[in-house]
Amino acid sequence: MKDINIKILDNIKKKYNCNYEFYNKDKKNKLNKNKSKIVSSIKEAIIKSGLKDNMTISFHHHFRHGDYTAEQVMEVIDQLNIKNLTITASSFTKSHDCFVKYIKKGIIIGLEGSALRGKLGDAISEGILNKPTIIRSHGGRARAIKNGECQIDVAFLSASSSDEMGNANGVIGQSCVGSLGYPIVDAQYAKKVIILTDTLVTFPNNPISISQIYVDYVVIVDKIGDNSKISSNEIHSTFNPKEIQIAKNIVKVIENTSYFKNGFSFQTGTGGASQASLMILKDIMIKKNIKASFFLGGIIKPQVDLLKMGLVEKLLDVQSFDLEAIQSIKDNKNHIEISASFYADGLCKSCAVNKLNFGILSALEIDINFNCNVLTGANGYIRGASGGHSDVAFGSDISIVALPLIRGRIPTITKKVQTIVTPGYDIDIVVTDIGIAVNPIRKDLIQNFKEKNINLISIENMQKIAYSITSEPDEIEYDKNKIVSLVEYRDGTLIDVIYKIKPFVL
Amino acid sequence: MKDINIKILDNIKKKYNCNYEFYNKDKKNKLNKNKSKIVSSIKEAIIKSGLKDNMTISFHHHFRHGDYTAEQVMEVIDQLNIKNLTITASSFTKSHDCFVKYIKKGIIIGLEGSALRGKLGDAISEGILNKPTIIRSHGGRARAIKNGECQIDVAFLSASSSDEMGNANGVIGQSCVGSLGYPIVDAQYAKKVIILTDTLVTFPNNPISISQIYVDYVVIVDKIGDNSKISSNEIHSTFNPKEIQIAKNIVKVIENTSYFKNGFSFQTGTGGASQASLMILKDIMIKKNIKASFFLGGIIKPQVDLLKMGLVEKLLDVQSFDLEAIQSIKDNKNHIEISASFYADGLCKSCAVNKLNFGILSALEIDINFNCNVLTGANGYIRGASGGHSDVAFGSDISIVALPLIRGRIPTITKKVQTIVTPGYDIDIVVTDIGIAVNPIRKDLIQNFKEKNINLISIENMQKIAYSITSEPDEIEYDKNKIVSLVEYRDGTLIDVIYKIKPFVL
Repeated sequence: MKDINIKILDNIKKKYNCNYEFYNKDKKNKLNKNKSKIVSSIKEAIIKSGLKDNMTISFHHHFRHGDYTAEQVMEVIDQLNIKNLTITASSFTKSHDCFVKYIKKGIIIGLEGSALRGKLGDAISEGILNKPTIIRSHGGRARAIKNGECQIDVAFLSASSSDEMGNANGVIGQSCVGSLGYPIVDAQYAKKVIILTDTLVTFPNNPISISQIYVDYVVIVDKIGDNSKISSNEIHSTFNPKEIQIAKNIVKVIENTSYFKNGFSFQTGTGGASQASLMILKDIMIKKNIKASFFLGGIIKPQVDLLKMGLVEKLLDVQSFDLEAIQSIKDNKNHIEISASFYADGLCKSCAVNKLNFGILSALEIDINFNCNVLTGANGYIRGASGGHSDVAFGSDISIVALPLIRGRIPTITKKVQTIVTPGYDIDIVVTDIGIAVNPIRKDLIQNFKEKNINLISIENMQKIAYSITSEPDEIEYDKNKIVSLVEYRDGTLIDVIYKIKPFVL
Repeated sequence: MKDINIKILDNIKKKYNCNYEFYNKDKKNKLNKNKSKIVSSIKEAIIKSGLKDNMTISFHHHFRHGDYTAEQVMEVIDQLNIKNLTITASSFTKSHDCFVKYIKKGIIIGLEGSALRGKLGDAISEGILNKPTIIRSHGGRARAIKNGECQIDVAFLSASSSDEMGNANGVIGQSCVGSLGYPIVDAQYAKKVIILTDTLVTFPNNPISISQIYVDYVVIVDKIGDNSKISSNEIHSTFNPKEIQIAKNIVKVIENTSYFKNGFSFQTGTGGASQASLMILKDIMIKKNIKASFFLGGIIKPQVDLLKMGLVEKLLDVQSFDLEAIQSIKDNKNHIEISASFYADGLCKSCAVNKLNFGILSALEIDINFNCNVLTGANGYIRGASGGHSDVAFGSDISIVALPLIRGRIPTITKKVQTIVTPGYDIDIVVTDIGIAVNPIRKDLIQNFKEKNINLISIENMQKIAYSITSEPDEIEYDKNKIVSLVEYRDGTLIDVIYKIKPFVL
């Protein structure tokens, strides 16, 4: 360094409010010269991460019911006697049933995620936790992580492959999951990030779904998950007559709107009717020579088929829902991995749901004000997922809730849903096996369908017909002194709460 | 929403320190429902961005001497009478000569970047700005943007293609630049991001180098740049005998270290000797059946050739330096775009330079303490680039500065460099046309070369030989009352300053 004119430099510092230290070769050790982040075990990673009582950790759920990571990590946390953790996950599946045990041991004191199901959902519904769980949509979770409402101390992120620096993806390795859409956000904002993989590859791994610039440690484990369990009974491949009828009504809606033209876009769920609608739509697209620009969301085989046939240009995949989707995102450059933020964060500079023409959604129940419950079942227990429901409903030009009028012996169109996850204001159309109801606020659509001689039925009539068959369902008995879940809307406001189930007494 | 038990909810809020507002459909307008970000002109984008006096704006320099964006934007800023701007760019090239005019008009009051050259470099050297420019390495700039030392109010980022939401890349369109490695960082951290493109594509554009989640506005302009000017005279394709001799010495160093084996990694500059060394190395790699794992940095045709030949597995490309590199990153999935953070940010969780075995660097001069000057020319004027110099020197296992002993009539090995950009501590080897000097702190390398009977020469002897030919260069006369540039080391400390050139008086 030159002989610095310190007076001049001090003037500069003062005037431009910069506070330079001088270069010092011995202080450079704060610079990172890391050449490998591999640690020998989950235990070592946890110790090095500084995880301690009362912190928040995160997981993703791309393996769905085949996840092996959360349990492996929780076992070690238990061994290390770390307590009072809050867990935020993109969702909870049956793979997380083991969490009940760790709740009982005081290791887990809070849960935040998109869904609760199985034994964990039951235990939460019955009030096992003092701290209410927080239910967020996929977009809402990305938002909360980004703006700091959900601060992750240590993210435990499984990846199908990683190099020693933590460049990771879901498309190479013995346990491929396809898109790593959800943990991309965790990795970016968590204080410490641990990649767990069963397939170490040489540096540099690519594609780079999670970048080394965010990763602290890499742990090699025997197996991160079983991808054959990604596609579960929630993903259908055969359809019953009721589903076919609903699917036909979905397609009737779609093809009779002005949005159904070359370049249209579409998101569908994994429910039977949604999938069947895609197959019917395919034939119409071929007949009318209409091609879609993109399909969005969780991606399934029927969508991959349309990509291969050239009927849709691109797939934007936040979660690959079956092995065909996993293979496709690996092979086809127009099958694109997107993050949860890109998918649905309503408070980032824009998200993909805004570009949807049609959003086909499912629901456990919907009421005459079009409010949707996708969380609590007929017995009041939590058994569903917020998912992208409210995100897609808000963003798409036409949001369609498709469901059977009666499921089991239970009416799905009700006077008032138990739990509001998606506000009726954002639902445009309800399609059931008995017909199509349009939200009265969509006067444009009502007029459109009238001109096209499409019969509509009011949602109130749908509800009455349903009740006439099933009779009015009994009210669920809740213990209103105990809130077990706070249901966040995608903007972070509170849209509903779920109370503790009242014990059934004979 | 259910009838909420407010007392219970208030207890929850208090206990868990959460402060929920209730969902309100009329307040949802803060949620983003943006379906297109296209604005009609640069002017409209600037007005909407809220750009005003005293703010900081940014550009990238991927078009190098063929950039049309900065001038187009500055013209409109001038029309709008916005003053006192600081400009941070990944670098400044001849395309930014026009900035001199805007400095004189009081529109630009500060510059931050990796390089100054041409008329702008001359004007800065002569003291045209009151506020000292800040010179940062590529990694240092990424660090400063991330940690907020360099806060960008509005980023003006040209991209070869974009869709209407701002998903942008450098590989599709009429003006392809290849990697968009530098502006990826600007986009992520700038308050407002404006994409300028001459090729609008249908949503969703891919690959997604810059994501819509960071973009505010998209402007379509006639032409963003001339990519035929990316490859300038700084990128050689023929070599003089001196360069060949230096190249041979570089290769002699490389092939006689333990790092030269299957899976080795390498970064080279665009100087003639560096490029020639790559060609010589190629033949040795073929002969010895050695393959490299990756080449890093600015990517040029000779590296693309090795990728095609299977002699290197992957290219990590922060900046595509010629049309062949641009075509390759478009076509070859193992030619990977990386951000400036991934490349070289020494304070993120890790960067790629740390994984380099060999970093081949150039320099304007290097002194007997191995300190490197890559900024100020023999006449004291700023005419060079910090670039990735100090990043690569720090990260690589063996950093090699390769340069001719004498350039023009000027010795390059000096007693003391004018300006330290990279500290001698991080330089391991100096290679010139007359031999190889090893930094005495690398006793391991000295021992290694001794065992292999490689002749070494001391840096002091190199300097003496140089001076014996050219005589000792005169000291540059600076005005030490005026600092024109602050030179930051990659960790953000001040490693040197550049004084104003003293006017030459006969």
